[in-house]
Amino acid sequence: MPELRKDPIIDRWVIISTERGKRPVFFVEEAPPAKVAVCPLCPGNESMTPPEVYAVRAPAAMPGPDWSLRVVPNKFPALRIEGTLDREGFGIYDKMNGIGAHEVIVETPNHGETLSDMPVNRVQNVFIAYRERIRDLMRDTRFKYIMVFKNNGSVAGASLDHAHSQLIALPIVPRRVSEEINGGLAYHKYKERCIFCDIIAQEREENTRIVYENERYIAISPYASRFPFETWILPKQHGAVFSEHDPADNFYSLAEMLSVVLRKYVKLLNAPPYNYIIHTAPAFNVGMEHYHWHIEIIPRLTKMAGFEWGTGFYINPTPPEEATTYLRETQA
Amino acid sequence: MPELRKDPIIDRWVIISTERGKRPVFFVEEAPPAKVAVCPLCPGNESMTPPEVYAVRAPAAMPGPDWSLRVVPNKFPALRIEGTLDREGFGIYDKMNGIGAHEVIVETPNHGETLSDMPVNRVQNVFIAYRERIRDLMRDTRFKYIMVFKNNGSVAGASLDHAHSQLIALPIVPRRVSEEINGGLAYHKYKERCIFCDIIAQEREENTRIVYENERYIAISPYASRFPFETWILPKQHGAVFSEHDPADNFYSLAEMLSVVLRKYVKLLNAPPYNYIIHTAPAFNVGMEHYHWHIEIIPRLTKMAGFEWGTGFYINPTPPEEATTYLRETQA
Repeated sequence: MPELRKDPIIDRWVIISTERGKRPVFFVEEAPPAKVAVCPLCPGNESMTPPEVYAVRAPAAMPGPDWSLRVVPNKFPALRIEGTLDREGFGIYDKMNGIGAHEVIVETPNHGETLSDMPVNRVQNVFIAYRERIRDLMRDTRFKYIMVFKNNGSVAGASLDHAHSQLIALPIVPRRVSEEINGGLAYHKYKERCIFCDIIAQEREENTRIVYENERYIAISPYASRFPFETWILPKQHGAVFSEHDPADNFYSLAEMLSVVLRKYVKLLNAPPYNYIIHTAPAFNVGMEHYHWHIEIIPRLTKMAGFEWGTGFYINPTPPEEATTYLRETQA
Repeated sequence: MPELRKDPIIDRWVIISTERGKRPVFFVEEAPPAKVAVCPLCPGNESMTPPEVYAVRAPAAMPGPDWSLRVVPNKFPALRIEGTLDREGFGIYDKMNGIGAHEVIVETPNHGETLSDMPVNRVQNVFIAYRERIRDLMRDTRFKYIMVFKNNGSVAGASLDHAHSQLIALPIVPRRVSEEINGGLAYHKYKERCIFCDIIAQEREENTRIVYENERYIAISPYASRFPFETWILPKQHGAVFSEHDPADNFYSLAEMLSVVLRKYVKLLNAPPYNYIIHTAPAFNVGMEHYHWHIEIIPRLTKMAGFEWGTGFYINPTPPEEATTYLRETQA
């Protein structure tokens, strides 16, 4: 059973994989990123993954594989679904069992196809899959937070080529999420407005960091961007919880927005590795006025150095206003 | 003038290099890490760096270069020394001028020599140089914090091969530092003891995560290690401020400790890239009872993925108890 351990000084939890401890030799061998002979996410190899928990299937008469999207439990999960939390202390240290869920969203049956290549309606299916899995998992009261993220490219941490994203259900609310919610709360106490709504208003007025805007979403280079070409996608209408937001639209507008931003990256930055993370309040916070869900996208163009680790403080060599100009000019 | 911008939601500052904005082409060109034809940190090339601010010189009669360690301002500083802070707001956003100092500690005249190769007395000189530069810079009242760190290897963010570390004087206390100090304060309020002193006591009792111990220092794999083979070096005697600590010892014992840990990394993990950061209270906090300075060393063996960015939450595949066993067994 993996362990969740809490740093005694700051409110930081770490998952320690006690079972499959990686030995020094694992890090020393200069292995190229494992080229799996057979891709476990390709059609025909469904038996290589645990049984699917969600899928989008084409009508039976259609040619090709019978699914266009699948969600399966991660074969090497960071957390385990079975068991109880058993929170306990050892002197000054705290730990609990590594209970949680870890799922893989296989975005396409076509090996080599990327999210930026896909038609908007299939990107939309990816967001719908996120929502459905979140809603299903939130019925398990052990889970306090569900995080959806994508690692694209091995530099960004992906261990498989086949396009996929991931979902982790956690028995705690991660500290970055709490910090954002608390920051929004402090502002709301003072102004009685959502800070993200105010950011959108100010960005529209200044109009120097808006990358793209469509019917329901806005993409900006944030004022205090940590990384070159970092982009945030925010719904223009206030909502705290991703999985509850905007069922009327059913994510079509969001899928169009993500497609545009990713295609701009592909053209401007030569298909860079990237990560995105859905930042949302925990699913039971529907109606929260002081938080606003959004997606943060980070192209992985620079290396994090000691300075960043030590300070939580970043040096960004590309001002967001310049990044915006380049991204705006890129037709995609 | 670079800008310091504050994220409006969470208390995070970012340095935006407005002058030398890096354009997309910089990130797209697959340039190998710049092999500088002439190393600006080698003896004979002193004119390639700004004038030195500190040096350790051998007696004039000695052969070889006349210095064994130099400190010079960074030729491409992230922050500028001249000017005033001019803190101002734009609607919900805050910024100030990027005032600060950015210096390079050239640890050796010998290109190719590493900190782990050097005799202990020369590593000691590196720590003395850190202390002297911190004490000098802290007389400038614009600076609230001075951070010392080392990036070793290009994966860890080093842009030059020649062994060096860096120092950045900041007009703010970085959030990671405040968080640690606040964490220590919360514990001290409750227990009236230093949490780091209590960690040392518990580690000695358990004796499963102590990597090495010498007269004045202890090296541990922290209980909630974020990374495989992460190591913290702590002074056994309480002290909040690195630059004020233990003048009687004058860092010999610390230099011996760092040498041992780095040599263990070299042997066990095949000379991995690494970062270290000196975590200290700001220099004017002498006598603070609730913080305890230390050094955090992180071998860069794993890639940070979306999950870590999104949550401030880590998955560590090597339990610290196992890492300790390997490091202890490695003779160095």
